[in-house]
Amino acid sequence: MRKIRLGMVGGGKDAFIGAVHRKAALMDGQIELAAGALSSTKEKALASGRELGLPDDRNYATWEEMLESEVSLPEEERIELISIVTPNHLHFPVASAFVDAGFHVVLDKPMVHTSTEARELIRLVEKTGIIFAVTYNYIGYPMVRQARHMVRRGVLGEIRKVIVEYNQGWLASKVEESGNKQAAWRTDPEKSGISGAVGDIGSHAENLVSTITGLEVSELCADLESFVPGRLLDDDANLLIRYEGGAKGVLIASQVSTGEENALSIRVYGTEGSLKWSQETPNLLVFKPIEAPLQVLTRGSNYLCEEAKKATRLPPGHPEGFIEAFANIYASVAAAIRVRRGEMDPDGSLWNFPTVYDGARGVHFIEKTVESSRSDKKWLNARWK
Amino acid sequence: MRKIRLGMVGGGKDAFIGAVHRKAALMDGQIELAAGALSSTKEKALASGRELGLPDDRNYATWEEMLESEVSLPEEERIELISIVTPNHLHFPVASAFVDAGFHVVLDKPMVHTSTEARELIRLVEKTGIIFAVTYNYIGYPMVRQARHMVRRGVLGEIRKVIVEYNQGWLASKVEESGNKQAAWRTDPEKSGISGAVGDIGSHAENLVSTITGLEVSELCADLESFVPGRLLDDDANLLIRYEGGAKGVLIASQVSTGEENALSIRVYGTEGSLKWSQETPNLLVFKPIEAPLQVLTRGSNYLCEEAKKATRLPPGHPEGFIEAFANIYASVAAAIRVRRGEMDPDGSLWNFPTVYDGARGVHFIEKTVESSRSDKKWLNARWK
Amino acid sequence: MRKIRLGMVGGGKDAFIGAVHRKAALMDGQIELAAGALSSTKEKALASGRELGLPDDRNYATWEEMLESEVSLPEEERIELISIVTPNHLHFPVASAFVDAGFHVVLDKPMVHTSTEARELIRLVEKTGIIFAVTYNYIGYPMVRQARHMVRRGVLGEIRKVIVEYNQGWLASKVEESGNKQAAWRTDPEKSGISGAVGDIGSHAENLVSTITGLEVSELCADLESFVPGRLLDDDANLLIRYEGGAKGVLIASQVSTGEENALSIRVYGTEGSLKWSQETPNLLVFKPIEAPLQVLTRGSNYLCEEAKKATRLPPGHPEGFIEAFANIYASVAAAIRVRRGEMDPDGSLWNFPTVYDGARGVHFIEKTVESSRSDKKWLNARWK
Amino acid sequence: MRKIRLGMVGGGKDAFIGAVHRKAALMDGQIELAAGALSSTKEKALASGRELGLPDDRNYATWEEMLESEVSLPEEERIELISIVTPNHLHFPVASAFVDAGFHVVLDKPMVHTSTEARELIRLVEKTGIIFAVTYNYIGYPMVRQARHMVRRGVLGEIRKVIVEYNQGWLASKVEESGNKQAAWRTDPEKSGISGAVGDIGSHAENLVSTITGLEVSELCADLESFVPGRLLDDDANLLIRYEGGAKGVLIASQVSTGEENALSIRVYGTEGSLKWSQETPNLLVFKPIEAPLQVLTRGSNYLCEEAKKATRLPPGHPEGFIEAFANIYASVAAAIRVRRGEMDPDGSLWNFPTVYDGARGVHFIEKTVESSRSDKKWLNARWK
Repeated sequence: MRKIRLGMVGGGKDAFIGAVHRKAALMDGQIELAAGALSSTKEKALASGRELGLPDDRNYATWEEMLESEVSLPEEERIELISIVTPNHLHFPVASAFVDAGFHVVLDKPMVHTSTEARELIRLVEKTGIIFAVTYNYIGYPMVRQARHMVRRGVLGEIRKVIVEYNQGWLASKVEESGNKQAAWRTDPEKSGISGAVGDIGSHAENLVSTITGLEVSELCADLESFVPGRLLDDDANLLIRYEGGAKGVLIASQVSTGEENALSIRVYGTEGSLKWSQETPNLLVFKPIEAPLQVLTRGSNYLCEEAKKATRLPPGHPEGFIEAFANIYASVAAAIRVRRGEMDPDGSLWNFPTVYDGARGVHFIEKTVESSRSDKKWLNARWK
Repeated sequence: MRKIRLGMVGGGKDAFIGAVHRKAALMDGQIELAAGALSSTKEKALASGRELGLPDDRNYATWEEMLESEVSLPEEERIELISIVTPNHLHFPVASAFVDAGFHVVLDKPMVHTSTEARELIRLVEKTGIIFAVTYNYIGYPMVRQARHMVRRGVLGEIRKVIVEYNQGWLASKVEESGNKQAAWRTDPEKSGISGAVGDIGSHAENLVSTITGLEVSELCADLESFVPGRLLDDDANLLIRYEGGAKGVLIASQVSTGEENALSIRVYGTEGSLKWSQETPNLLVFKPIEAPLQVLTRGSNYLCEEAKKATRLPPGHPEGFIEAFANIYASVAAAIRVRRGEMDPDGSLWNFPTVYDGARGVHFIEKTVESSRSDKKWLNARWK
Repeated sequence: MRKIRLGMVGGGKDAFIGAVHRKAALMDGQIELAAGALSSTKEKALASGRELGLPDDRNYATWEEMLESEVSLPEEERIELISIVTPNHLHFPVASAFVDAGFHVVLDKPMVHTSTEARELIRLVEKTGIIFAVTYNYIGYPMVRQARHMVRRGVLGEIRKVIVEYNQGWLASKVEESGNKQAAWRTDPEKSGISGAVGDIGSHAENLVSTITGLEVSELCADLESFVPGRLLDDDANLLIRYEGGAKGVLIASQVSTGEENALSIRVYGTEGSLKWSQETPNLLVFKPIEAPLQVLTRGSNYLCEEAKKATRLPPGHPEGFIEAFANIYASVAAAIRVRRGEMDPDGSLWNFPTVYDGARGVHFIEKTVESSRSDKKWLNARWK
Repeated sequence: MRKIRLGMVGGGKDAFIGAVHRKAALMDGQIELAAGALSSTKEKALASGRELGLPDDRNYATWEEMLESEVSLPEEERIELISIVTPNHLHFPVASAFVDAGFHVVLDKPMVHTSTEARELIRLVEKTGIIFAVTYNYIGYPMVRQARHMVRRGVLGEIRKVIVEYNQGWLASKVEESGNKQAAWRTDPEKSGISGAVGDIGSHAENLVSTITGLEVSELCADLESFVPGRLLDDDANLLIRYEGGAKGVLIASQVSTGEENALSIRVYGTEGSLKWSQETPNLLVFKPIEAPLQVLTRGSNYLCEEAKKATRLPPGHPEGFIEAFANIYASVAAAIRVRRGEMDPDGSLWNFPTVYDGARGVHFIEKTVESSRSDKKWLNARWK
């Protein structure tokens, strides 16, 4: 079995998410890191590549150089898949160039800055037919897949209400001014886009609701705030949401909720019961049926659905975490590539990752949330397509 | 030490909250049940009184009869304190009559149906100078008092955000039509008032925020829903709130959140840390300081504030619950009465119960929430006074 | 309905458990405190009684005086039930005197100091036929009753293993020398008996196992320790247990487990699943069936057994605690007395409290544990009867 | 940076722990799988290697063949590190051969079958000076390292008591007879050794105590059981332990505790406070100081010790799990190899894995536990060395 050859743009030293992408990609022994342009600073890019053991001739100083060079390599040598893990403002130029050149792409979220860019990226993906994933990584968790399975099969009855939260506290003070590079670009509109909290984490929350329930936003009412004095982007967001079909929602996202670490959670209430999943205890899914005891379903158990079982590497009680969930996105992309290679039969249950459409819906959600927050009108039409 | 003589209106057989009031009042051996008009149905009233061991001559068929009879008794025999635990629509007539006659009163929440009634009750209480408590009982929990102490002393820094939730699932189907009397009156506008979920439980949530933080609502934006077909009052409520001074809030109250029991919880986020308290695990208070480990404070511990310690009957690890918290309201009222009797010195830390002003603010909150829900305007001015 | 007239021996000011007994007895409005000899110090006894509102003529200086006086009162006035809440060394003389005089008795645990005394008390109880309860109070919790129901009905299959723990940390330093009266008598062999940790809390653990599972100890192997220098009684105990029929057990009891509050818990493992109950979260019972999701059963739920439902005062989500569980022992005793009075029909499910035989088995367990700890032999025959 | 070349013995298809070793080794991009003899069945070995992308000339049918072939390769090509992940009975022959040939070794636990073998392996490791790790993997968890740091620095005061448990339920019925290969060899004395539960999981528990506290067993008293009829090895073990210096211990290990998944936990009680860590929620460490609120320390936090921080890949709130902890063992071994290569300076905090002495102590513990269980004597001297 030939490994899939991965190239990476961004993710050099000090980057958080680049290292996660690499560990996730490498963990299962199916993908190898073959090339990279790992930083926007040439020296840092090259030093990072050397540290990771990239051969000098494929350790590029810029992504443009990598693109030019790799397309000229023979097919069986050149990278097949590119991971784009730069700050947001580079997502569109890098992704559109690599998509256009026919590489499969894994792109960090939020996909791009504007719906215009999103539509262009959709056009390119549809034109080239490449495999394109956006790392709304939380749906890689097996128990999220179990939740989706249960909601979609009607175990909860008709869905009435969804409460989704993504609470962090790391930006509660002005750390962007004291050398925290993650904070610096995330609070800079040039690099991060029109929103801070909603763009960085609120869009994860939106995607989680959409993935599990399939509900589509019809209207929303947002209240964004920049609590830290002098910060240009929102660091706190609270939304009331109305979904098509009558369900109601509350979405809370905050980067100034002191004491919170990475508290993404979702509660889905239906007529027959409810589900709760929390990212910080991801191996559990709480199911509360009406008129019966609360149940705690655990990852790895025999009674779970096939999609949850296939997304699992370990027996119950052996905790899996963030990297494993991330690795499930890569495993799905790798499976899709193997199908293209003709090495595997198509298997729907493996082909399981957020697409360019999820990415575009996320961008739309960010735009509508910011628009609502600035409006005096209570309800803003936020239908996507 | 003479016991305090209690009369009760409402709370006969099948009533939930009446029995709680009695157990709470009796637990500490300071109060005795001396008279009652325990139901609006004469036979049921008398049977309930007999079962509780009331003497025949003080087991009344109606509250009017009780009022008339008790005022004619010698002061050292007649009841001193009256508990009103009827459905909401009787709160105003019964309370105003007993207040006017000079009895001390414990009244269930929401206090009355309208702000007009609330103002009248305030007038009567101020005129007569009687002791008047509204059973926003959750502030009777010792760890709520500890939370108040910490927030008020600035342990959390400046408060930025409050998330309060009160989730129940018991009205997720139309149980009001299948013999559930609690459900029947609570979903009946005649008896319950203009709101269901907000009136019954949302106002508890509002009071909890106000008690702990002292924050005052400036504007709110509400989305109420009646999910169960044919139900006349809201059974689900989601609010965005802006407080005076710039803090933001989210308030969620629901009676259709399947699987939830009595899930009242509050999270308060300040610049220096956050607190979380959940009614279903009331003996704990979670404190998350920035840059230090999360702490779990436990009821009964030596390190708590005086108010929390005084509200405690047992050492740590011996769980106290709902009735004990309720009993703390009665204990505070009893202490206030003893001060009036001249048996105790005034002690601020004991005189610790929600007043007629808390009750009036709660009524105002319900009215404004309903008004906002019907409005197209995003933000409704909801300042009280 | 005439209230049941209660007398109390011990439980004056500063006593912990006496106040619990009173609150538990009074809570439901069925029992009234009619007489007391509340301390071994005359002045303190009388002052305590005055504070509790006892009439002077039934506020006794000594228990002997109370016994003599009460037996001479007319039957409809004299106390019917006596609560004995003194330090352990007075249990036998007081209980045997009151039993012999025909009073019903609620006696704190451990019942008496020796098996010889236990046999004599059994003889007296059998002779007089009075109602006699020992406050192994933890079985008053509704979810303990549910656990018993499930185990006895075979829901767990055949029981293989029981792990019971009772961990406290309050005696981790020599607090008995710094004015802590609870600590002083509990670490004094004259007052406490031959064991500290095992007598005070280990016997609760033994009773909990026996109550829930019905398993009978066949052999045990104990390791007792006095960790605090100079302490005369054990403050830490670890036991391996073999039960009749082949089940194995571990029993851990400690008063020096720093940071622990009142951490009594039990885990029962059968061939078909397991149960876990923890006293500090008493409203929950965790059931882990094989090959199915873990379940959390909650107090007050409709799906519980009758005995659990009858022992409940509040709906789910409204926490009940230690006093309510204690009150269930009193409620069962009260029901038994009402049956004797002819006011109620016998109802097995209410007549539900630890008896003189439970008390005697507890004393036997303490003796055998101490004997084992001093022995070089691995397994000590510890069968009771 | 050249990757470290790994060979693997065992771990073919259907093996659980082999895949864990591979993912752990690969995750950080420092190690590459270069050769393997992945099964004792030739066809399965070769098929497994092909699936993993091993080149044909280094995909060996037997470990003897791999050893012979690899030693003949030039140093810069041949494997440097060998992972031995076979059933236990092959540990000694394979490990001693590879050690003797000068390869670095990662060996699964329990290290070997007998103390005689353990001594021989120590002799070989000391003679060759190779790097040798035993995968008592749980000490790879960052919060275990934090616990060790706190205990060793005296944060808990003097240690009095340790309760360690390792509860599983997967062998509660006779699954070894229904095609479960993991169960089949683990319950077979030929392959597993003289003990089932103690060998497989009890020795992990022993290692965890030793690692965190440094306490040395002086005497123990064990009760082993084979609950499942016809099973030849113990599936349940309960031990009382006395440590040098006076601390007491309880060790519980079970494979028949129905409903339990992989419930390894440890509680350490000192004079100044206690710690609790549970493998199923590995990102947390609970610290209960006396006279202060309970603390929950979380992985990734700035306030942790250096060793805990270095063992972490992600910020707080992004859960790490079993594989990451396992990967920390490999990362430490890889660092040690790099030091040997001269690529890194020695850094004690990285060189952090269980050694051949830990492995030998574990074998001794298993032997003494079995011996004690068969003895009538209460306390068996179990000192190691």
